[in-house]
Amino acid sequence: MINQSYKNMLSQKSVIRELSEYATARGKEIGYENVFDYSLGNPSVPCPMDYTKKVIDMYNSKDPMTIHGYSPSLGIEDVREKVANSLNKRFGIAYKAKHIFMAIGAAGALAHAFRAVTEPGDEIIVFAPFFPEYREYIKRTGAVMKVIPPSTEDFQINFDAFLEEINHKTMAVLINSPNNPSGVVYSPETLEKLSAILRDKEKEFGHDIFLISDEPYREITFGGLECPYPSKFYDNTLSCYSFSKSLSLPGERIGYVAINPNCTDSDILAVIMGQISRGIGHNCPASTSQLAVASVLDETADLSVYETNMKILYQALVGMGFTVVKPGGTFYIFPKALEEDAVAFCKKAMKYDLILVPADNFGCPGYFRMAYCIDTEKVERSIPVFREFVRKEYGVNC
Amino acid sequence: MINQSYKNMLSQKSVIRELSEYATARGKEIGYENVFDYSLGNPSVPCPMDYTKKVIDMYNSKDPMTIHGYSPSLGIEDVREKVANSLNKRFGIAYKAKHIFMAIGAAGALAHAFRAVTEPGDEIIVFAPFFPEYREYIKRTGAVMKVIPPSTEDFQINFDAFLEEINHKTMAVLINSPNNPSGVVYSPETLEKLSAILRDKEKEFGHDIFLISDEPYREITFGGLECPYPSKFYDNTLSCYSFSKSLSLPGERIGYVAINPNCTDSDILAVIMGQISRGIGHNCPASTSQLAVASVLDETADLSVYETNMKILYQALVGMGFTVVKPGGTFYIFPKALEEDAVAFCKKAMKYDLILVPADNFGCPGYFRMAYCIDTEKVERSIPVFREFVRKEYGVNC
Repeated sequence: MINQSYKNMLSQKSVIRELSEYATARGKEIGYENVFDYSLGNPSVPCPMDYTKKVIDMYNSKDPMTIHGYSPSLGIEDVREKVANSLNKRFGIAYKAKHIFMAIGAAGALAHAFRAVTEPGDEIIVFAPFFPEYREYIKRTGAVMKVIPPSTEDFQINFDAFLEEINHKTMAVLINSPNNPSGVVYSPETLEKLSAILRDKEKEFGHDIFLISDEPYREITFGGLECPYPSKFYDNTLSCYSFSKSLSLPGERIGYVAINPNCTDSDILAVIMGQISRGIGHNCPASTSQLAVASVLDETADLSVYETNMKILYQALVGMGFTVVKPGGTFYIFPKALEEDAVAFCKKAMKYDLILVPADNFGCPGYFRMAYCIDTEKVERSIPVFREFVRKEYGVNC
Repeated sequence: MINQSYKNMLSQKSVIRELSEYATARGKEIGYENVFDYSLGNPSVPCPMDYTKKVIDMYNSKDPMTIHGYSPSLGIEDVREKVANSLNKRFGIAYKAKHIFMAIGAAGALAHAFRAVTEPGDEIIVFAPFFPEYREYIKRTGAVMKVIPPSTEDFQINFDAFLEEINHKTMAVLINSPNNPSGVVYSPETLEKLSAILRDKEKEFGHDIFLISDEPYREITFGGLECPYPSKFYDNTLSCYSFSKSLSLPGERIGYVAINPNCTDSDILAVIMGQISRGIGHNCPASTSQLAVASVLDETADLSVYETNMKILYQALVGMGFTVVKPGGTFYIFPKALEEDAVAFCKKAMKYDLILVPADNFGCPGYFRMAYCIDTEKVERSIPVFREFVRKEYGVNC
């Protein structure tokens, strides 16, 4: 019979997906250029031209038996080595090929990381606000997700709440910096403090606690700053990466887990992930996608539009009196709604064809997310509409 | 802490993988051309040239934002429709796009099919001989795999044993025709009889029993025969397919589940599989792989070498006195060993640099598998070596 637990999921629609579908439908009525669709986190810039060129070269010059052959389930050895070298050069870590596990995007990377370091019933701590899919990702591993409420003044970590929650069942802590939805980059101080607590608690509980670091936005940072690399702060770190955002290749479903060489069982963790693949049916990402990204590892798409859009929006939102933390990266901004119920707030915005996402599902009620991976011209056109919205609905004088 | 159940898997090495690694190592000593490596089921012919051409055209002419954009988790709508139409034309079924779920190869397809129609504790029946990975695929869903012993005279289904095993906990039956490892194609009579029993048992037990049909070898059939399509015989069928073998694209990790339009909940099963993806981290296969295979759906690689090799081997093995069922498809042949212990038999063969796989793991002790997806010239050279082996080790007069 049809699995009831999955069948029941059909009635729980994703808010983001619903809003995005509404925006598309509304676009068919009034022209999509007139819908200010801030719903979806979908890259808005093309991949590097060099990527396309190298893929075409590969298809023209390489033996099809080689480029279309089975990849080992841990990834193509040469690709893993190139990823390791690229990370070493940038972050001064001593990864070897054996520490890299190629995965189907960050979702695939996380699916393996969670299963590798937890048993069913173990707890994984997540900090609000967080990407809502983490709930489903974790639930299906058998582990239990524990949410730490947000530190809304800066969207760094609420350490008091964290210290109350962490216990002997905590086997992993999941972080996401630069953060979806807040746009905030964890500071070196935050990562230092988190690491110190984890090291203490490992001693206290007598077992490893792994830091699972979800890093798809690592390359989208603002003000010329580099995102502090969590694995530099804490040895038991599994860095989960996707090329979706940095290379604007979300459809390629290609990423990796980078296992800190000093972490427990670092020599066999990738092999364990290969075993996990057998049970959940990944096996490995497409060989051609692996080979293609390996040829442009140190490049990115032109990501500058995201900072341009952030500056326009941040300034405008502050000008309208919104409480908002300035994003340090990503293509999200995360203001406080003008009433307690962010769902009601976002519903009112829809009357103005402003598509905003209420953050209840992100573990942060009362806030909303704007994904500004759209054309700058549209961001600019949305500002007067936004002003009209808050003037008319909330009497804001702006 | 590291998950113990996955960690324990590291000590259980795959026999096929071990033999293949031995063959590679031995090749470095004596030249790989002198190792008669029948271990791995890896396609030995290139993909169609038309495939390469169309991929290059796509990269040259299409907008990168389109071809590298996120695919919906069920697959790209237009690709799903093309797959449906191609199957309809060939098999006279009325699939629509909504009945096709794009998956990461047959392994990904099976991972979704199993989870969609079983709850943990349910039973899935598998017929020996079977692909050993089924064990891991099923174990991780929480369902229980029940093995029906082989019908060794023809490697069709042992119906007496099947009728003894099927019970109210049986929620799915897994078949694989053309079969790995036997090479046998299930006859229309076998599929008729199986379907009749399943229909009876559905009534008796008062619940659906799904037929999960693993079909990666569907296009590799011999004597100009078409493989009978299981979904034509039984409505509650989920056909799991991979383009790995037909198009010689194992590295692309691209396949699908085709849901019979008359099966229970056929309108929502693909959507349910989309929910399953969220929990196991697939999301969807690479967009470019989906678009690429959709452009060559009715083509195959030149698969004729497999039939050529089969004929040479079958004739030679029969000539040496082996008990062997003539394969109707795949690139495998499955003779009975010349002693009860096929592991010992295959070990003796290694002295002659003949790499054969004992079938204990395939649920069929006493038999061995030869994967003849290798050059015909090498197959021919292996015959006198094979004769020497059975003459010297078993005193066969040949």
